[in-house]
Amino acid sequence: MIEPGQLILLISHKGKRYLRKLEAGGEVHTHDGKLLMDEVAEAGFGQYVKTHLGKSYLVLKPTLHDLIKGVKRQTQIMYPKEIGYLMMKLGIGPGSTVIESGTGSGGLTTALAWFVGDTGKVITYERRADFYKLAGKNLERVGLAHRVEQVNRNIEDGFLHSGADALFLDVRTPWEYLGAIPDAVIPGAMCGFLLPTVNQVSDLLRGLEDGPFAELEVLEILVRRWKPVADRLRPDDRMVAHTGFLVFARYMEQPEVQPLPGDEPEGIPDSALSDEDPDDAPVTEDDPDALEV
Amino acid sequence: MIEPGQLILLISHKGKRYLRKLEAGGEVHTHDGKLLMDEVAEAGFGQYVKTHLGKSYLVLKPTLHDLIKGVKRQTQIMYPKEIGYLMMKLGIGPGSTVIESGTGSGGLTTALAWFVGDTGKVITYERRADFYKLAGKNLERVGLAHRVEQVNRNIEDGFLHSGADALFLDVRTPWEYLGAIPDAVIPGAMCGFLLPTVNQVSDLLRGLEDGPFAELEVLEILVRRWKPVADRLRPDDRMVAHTGFLVFARYMEQPEVQPLPGDEPEGIPDSALSDEDPDDAPVTEDDPDALEV
Amino acid sequence: MIEPGQLILLISHKGKRYLRKLEAGGEVHTHDGKLLMDEVAEAGFGQYVKTHLGKSYLVLKPTLHDLIKGVKRQTQIMYPKEIGYLMMKLGIGPGSTVIESGTGSGGLTTALAWFVGDTGKVITYERRADFYKLAGKNLERVGLAHRVEQVNRNIEDGFLHSGADALFLDVRTPWEYLGAIPDAVIPGAMCGFLLPTVNQVSDLLRGLEDGPFAELEVLEILVRRWKPVADRLRPDDRMVAHTGFLVFARYMEQPEVQPLPGDEPEGIPDSALSDEDPDDAPVTEDDPDALEV
Amino acid sequence: MIEPGQLILLISHKGKRYLRKLEAGGEVHTHDGKLLMDEVAEAGFGQYVKTHLGKSYLVLKPTLHDLIKGVKRQTQIMYPKEIGYLMMKLGIGPGSTVIESGTGSGGLTTALAWFVGDTGKVITYERRADFYKLAGKNLERVGLAHRVEQVNRNIEDGFLHSGADALFLDVRTPWEYLGAIPDAVIPGAMCGFLLPTVNQVSDLLRGLEDGPFAELEVLEILVRRWKPVADRLRPDDRMVAHTGFLVFARYMEQPEVQPLPGDEPEGIPDSALSDEDPDDAPVTEDDPDALEV
Repeated sequence: MIEPGQLILLISHKGKRYLRKLEAGGEVHTHDGKLLMDEVAEAGFGQYVKTHLGKSYLVLKPTLHDLIKGVKRQTQIMYPKEIGYLMMKLGIGPGSTVIESGTGSGGLTTALAWFVGDTGKVITYERRADFYKLAGKNLERVGLAHRVEQVNRNIEDGFLHSGADALFLDVRTPWEYLGAIPDAVIPGAMCGFLLPTVNQVSDLLRGLEDGPFAELEVLEILVRRWKPVADRLRPDDRMVAHTGFLVFARYMEQPEVQPLPGDEPEGIPDSALSDEDPDDAPVTEDDPDALEV
Repeated sequence: MIEPGQLILLISHKGKRYLRKLEAGGEVHTHDGKLLMDEVAEAGFGQYVKTHLGKSYLVLKPTLHDLIKGVKRQTQIMYPKEIGYLMMKLGIGPGSTVIESGTGSGGLTTALAWFVGDTGKVITYERRADFYKLAGKNLERVGLAHRVEQVNRNIEDGFLHSGADALFLDVRTPWEYLGAIPDAVIPGAMCGFLLPTVNQVSDLLRGLEDGPFAELEVLEILVRRWKPVADRLRPDDRMVAHTGFLVFARYMEQPEVQPLPGDEPEGIPDSALSDEDPDDAPVTEDDPDALEV
Repeated sequence: MIEPGQLILLISHKGKRYLRKLEAGGEVHTHDGKLLMDEVAEAGFGQYVKTHLGKSYLVLKPTLHDLIKGVKRQTQIMYPKEIGYLMMKLGIGPGSTVIESGTGSGGLTTALAWFVGDTGKVITYERRADFYKLAGKNLERVGLAHRVEQVNRNIEDGFLHSGADALFLDVRTPWEYLGAIPDAVIPGAMCGFLLPTVNQVSDLLRGLEDGPFAELEVLEILVRRWKPVADRLRPDDRMVAHTGFLVFARYMEQPEVQPLPGDEPEGIPDSALSDEDPDDAPVTEDDPDALEV
Repeated sequence: MIEPGQLILLISHKGKRYLRKLEAGGEVHTHDGKLLMDEVAEAGFGQYVKTHLGKSYLVLKPTLHDLIKGVKRQTQIMYPKEIGYLMMKLGIGPGSTVIESGTGSGGLTTALAWFVGDTGKVITYERRADFYKLAGKNLERVGLAHRVEQVNRNIEDGFLHSGADALFLDVRTPWEYLGAIPDAVIPGAMCGFLLPTVNQVSDLLRGLEDGPFAELEVLEILVRRWKPVADRLRPDDRMVAHTGFLVFARYMEQPEVQPLPGDEPEGIPDSALSDEDPDDAPVTEDDPDALEV
């Protein structure tokens, strides 16, 4: 029995998808006729219901993946391969407060709102009014708007918020806004960036090197799909070869404090904070990076 | 001011890391001398504190990435690149209930517990008593044990739980346990698997094709790191080329229901559910897969 | 001044390509009118000539790449990325004798014939009469037929030739023909194979392990193209993710001779012959694998 | 029976390798004792011979791959994956004349000399006297020096040769030498470049765009090795992720000739010459790029 207010995903035998919030007594008007939400609620997830024209629809509990696929978009949106990694690196989870800009169509905003839960907060900046409105509608539709504070403002003018746990910039010239970060996040906060060209990556790295940032990282994520055929197993013929470069840095108040002669070092070198290959290192019990806890 | 009970990460100028829960009046014994937790609490995140020997330590709020790096391990643990993607595909978020086996050292368990939040639940099965204990200690250390139900049991004997939203198997012969899945998860639940060899992938696909599963997917995730140097930007010389193959499938009660002659199709074909390239498809407003909401 | 008998490549302003052998007094009939070969010869490579309708055509000296692109095909043909690597590994060069099967459309045959020169020989087996004829025409067209001996025969019945320097099999079940190799090549000869699925790779490896072969290698070659734009440099959005797996092995009369107790080892272990990572190892002067010459 | 003057590769049971030219009556002094060349000649390729201390050595006919591995080096040398592709794209084969700079240790020079055969020519420029000498010795050792003309000169001062079929620059700032190319090669000649960083690629592209060049291409080649185990088949854990970017361009006297109003176009647009994805396009009979021959 599905509860009112829960999101449901309805899929026709042709693959047509309808994302709705369950309402007692409600109806869904599909290309194949009308579905009664009460019948959907009674059937339950993973079951089939029929329209008044007798067409079968599968009822599913949508995953975040489904929600993001359903975002109405007027901009390029981020791919799951980058989004998942981002959550790990930025430390996003239930209770996190995160600042994002620009909002765009709200694809990443949806993911951030999903993961911060009801105890967290997403603050998202967008200077274009049309995107601001579009994202608002998208968030409303998937029932996550209450976790998001949308701001229709150019971040050139700075961020209005402070003390965020993490920050993500998906803008064309992020190096122009680095100066606004210290007032927006807590010291030690992780900052992420997504950029399509290597020229932009170079420009951003120059900005980060000049500012209060440490642990710089640049990486790409590639997903290689295989044809799921047991006896003729092989990779797909083609794949997505490029979406963007992910850049990460930690905001540090004193990233390069130098030791005084005859005194103890006050700061820590970048190399001490960032293990060369943090994700990829085969880690064993005697790993020098292993925590002493 | 850091609150008692919060996790803190202390990093020496040499990169030595200590993960602790803050206790009023507590002490941390490092290789460089003693740190007072009250001083740490007062300094706050992103700041430096000194040991009684005058050595500086950086205080950070640990990310999930930091927690997983700190897992004491006797087994290979999953990489962030796979973990992040898994959360997206399995639909894990605050409030989710997820079943996992085997627990191993508890690396993925830590990530699952992080993302399900206090309103969710991770149920993790492990037949070896030593791993069961090790994972328990690791979860305790990072303050996530209360979100996890550990079971020291061979899943050969079935799962003890039902109605989970998602399930993940990281075992050598997952195809032997597919029969236990329908009783453990809700219809429509996403199931994930991680396997190192293509022979295992073939065996698993055979099992999934014979069972109540749809939307089969096989993929690999590659992370390619770059040297973060603005004027000499280029990829690292070497990279991790293989950790494992991720396999996904949706548990469906009637994955292959055939339409009766003269009647409506009751089931939906796999191809309707699974878009060929779900993550990678460039999605536009007129995308046939876009949701009608 | 281009000599009669030389191959010329003519390209229209629309990119239409014509590959011809230069004949004194000859004509080329294009979609844009007639070209006189004498004018082409006089203009020379890298220059433009006009048809009788006044359309310009560029005259180029075709590379092997151009020749292979021009192969009329009824089968999938190999990609330059695999062909180039093959030449290196199989040791093909001027003077080499190499056996190939199947001929298919003659794409690889063209490349082999190019590289063995007039002092070498390519012997190519094809059981299907239609492909045999097609490849013959393709080779004739590019002026390389005199370096090739075509055989219209099923290699099930063995090879008719012996003493080849190298051998390449591009057939569906190469493991069925391994027994014919020792009579066809010199001891120590390199053998190559191309296979689309991992199931076939496993089957072939089983066959090679059971036979007189050493130095087994399996690899894939990926080419990632970039958009050649100086100020917006980035990889192409999509790439070819899979063509096939290349497998290599050295035919050895005694690949696994065991040392007698109290005697000297007669054979050499596979591991001694094959360095773990032969192509990729960064090689330095004190490399243990470096030759003593 | 191996002929005097032929190259032989001798491999100990421990994998120690000796590359020599066979001389009647000669001897090879190994770590395991003395080998008689007459016995080697009589044994033949693929056979074993014993030292005077009774140790077995395998006799092989070296491939190009073996020769390059044996190059004594004081510089980074190119990998087979790039070398093979280069031969294809530059159109190198028996009879080709090719210009190269810098010579370095002579690794690529060896490969070029191998493929051009006795009827071709490699002209290689190196400004450093020590590398010039080292490469000379390396070429002598593998018996290919007679196909190579070495020049100890800075290409800043231009090339001394003209009319080459192809040209390859492996120097730090190739964009500084583009002006010397037109006098060195035939119109329409393919030019290749290898560069480690994207900053250099951008600089080179700017130079090529400003000069008489067409068909610009930038690409990377990745080789992914697999563990050759039939029942546990999977990729190697690590791989080489970066050696360099390959850049190609065709030298054209009039790369951008514009059509006059009311007249026929005189030149051809880059896009007409360069198919978007020349190597990777799945080519079929009705391919618009297919040659009309």
